[in-house]
Amino acid sequence: MRFLVGQVNEGTAVFLLSGNSAINLTEQDPSIGSDLMGIIKAGMTLSDLESRVVGAKSVPLDTIKPALPVVSPGMIMCLGLNYVDHIKEGGYDIPEYPVFFMRGPKSLMPAGAPMIRPVCSEQLDYEAELMVIIGKGGKHISESDALNHVFGYTIFNDGSVREYQRKTPQWTAGKNFDSTGAVGPIVVTPDELPVGGEGLKIEARVGDEILQSASTSDMMWSVARTIVAISEFATLSEGDLIAMGTPPGVGHAKNPPRWLTNGETVEVEIEGIGICSNPIVDEVTFNKSG
Amino acid sequence: MRFLVGQVNEGTAVFLLSGNSAINLTEQDPSIGSDLMGIIKAGMTLSDLESRVVGAKSVPLDTIKPALPVVSPGMIMCLGLNYVDHIKEGGYDIPEYPVFFMRGPKSLMPAGAPMIRPVCSEQLDYEAELMVIIGKGGKHISESDALNHVFGYTIFNDGSVREYQRKTPQWTAGKNFDSTGAVGPIVVTPDELPVGGEGLKIEARVGDEILQSASTSDMMWSVARTIVAISEFATLSEGDLIAMGTPPGVGHAKNPPRWLTNGETVEVEIEGIGICSNPIVDEVTFNKSG
Repeated sequence: MRFLVGQVNEGTAVFLLSGNSAINLTEQDPSIGSDLMGIIKAGMTLSDLESRVVGAKSVPLDTIKPALPVVSPGMIMCLGLNYVDHIKEGGYDIPEYPVFFMRGPKSLMPAGAPMIRPVCSEQLDYEAELMVIIGKGGKHISESDALNHVFGYTIFNDGSVREYQRKTPQWTAGKNFDSTGAVGPIVVTPDELPVGGEGLKIEARVGDEILQSASTSDMMWSVARTIVAISEFATLSEGDLIAMGTPPGVGHAKNPPRWLTNGETVEVEIEGIGICSNPIVDEVTFNKSG
Repeated sequence: MRFLVGQVNEGTAVFLLSGNSAINLTEQDPSIGSDLMGIIKAGMTLSDLESRVVGAKSVPLDTIKPALPVVSPGMIMCLGLNYVDHIKEGGYDIPEYPVFFMRGPKSLMPAGAPMIRPVCSEQLDYEAELMVIIGKGGKHISESDALNHVFGYTIFNDGSVREYQRKTPQWTAGKNFDSTGAVGPIVVTPDELPVGGEGLKIEARVGDEILQSASTSDMMWSVARTIVAISEFATLSEGDLIAMGTPPGVGHAKNPPRWLTNGETVEVEIEGIGICSNPIVDEVTFNKSG
């Protein structure tokens, strides 16, 4: 299944996609709610959904303004340094345990929404990432069972303010600027992708400029092993988000550094999932206009 | 005002304290809800509350089982290395910017509840801390206005699994084990404490053993400056929690290290606020019994 959460005239709704058309599930069954949590918690299958959409009209995909797939995730756990070549470009050692950091919900925004370049720093950087949405919670999950806990995969652009990320050894500030982490727009269930989301081409671009280009097979910590590692210390819950880390090519490692600037549009594409595209807007401009 | 959120026979409720007795605000006005968010969001004053409790009966404080003051905080931002002598004992350099890390809601539990010592590590440690509850949200808050954004102060025991905290430079895993961060029980509004919660004696103890003993005046980053720093990158919201870091005396810095063990009870006391007391329970024992 492929889902898009987004706004149409009737409000924010969950859409089931078929090619370039989309069926408004929320309109057919309001109990589904206005993000994916209803479907995740109910464990709805394709046949559950198909029975609800008999005779439903579809709307063109491009008439829907994307919203966050999960509005209030209980946990947003992110991996750093998960692609060997990205570790080398940052001057880090290869970690023997996943490098985890957390983002708060206010740092996230949907595909299409402005990525805000803050007034306090020019060092806004992109990071193309695969994002996992947890479908079934658990603690002490085994590696063989881990992928059964995945609801779906989407795209993440882990927008980072490098100057603040490196003010201290803890990356928290630089990873938690308001509206810097782009999520979505399409969420794809695991049955439509290779096992563990591996072997997918992943790219970040601004216009014709290819900034990052790699394969999700280069991840050192697979989705399954990452779920094992997190659930050793924290209970995972439905709707939790896991950002799987970024391949080489980030702006701060280029010479000279390649920072995002007001007016540019950054795209992250993952094969088989889609494109997450966001305009860069200076904080001052953003506050004045809206 | 002094508040306690807790369970009685009628369910979880917000209590207004007067000496050793407590008035059930939720019973008097169910719209207040079962944690402090209702009062915080409505900006209720003492006179607002007093008008609701005319003629109300009070119950003894010790009949109430503490619950979390804020059940679903949007952000739990924590300071590391905020007392000079604690920085020295950990072998760190004095930071020029606050060292921020984040905890997720599932890592928190109320005063009185078990602090879970995980199966995967023996290195469970205590950290006595002042905790700030945000009352009024904002971005780019100035230092002169910052304390107007504080709803109240409570106690935090930032239970840390040192082995996992130091597996990589990011502390996230060691700070996010389930049910390791104790919050509460009493929340005190700023008018009843010194400005910025400074000058308060803060202690951690197990029985007669005094583990940490300091003054909140030793914090390098004051509450006001911390609010300024966070709100430079993230919008603060009502109910957000800020943990202000711990003084020297943590277990991992003692020689030999002093880890918490099953059956001990750790107490954190802050002058003018109260005592946060939690039994240490091995994860295996906890799962078997509850």
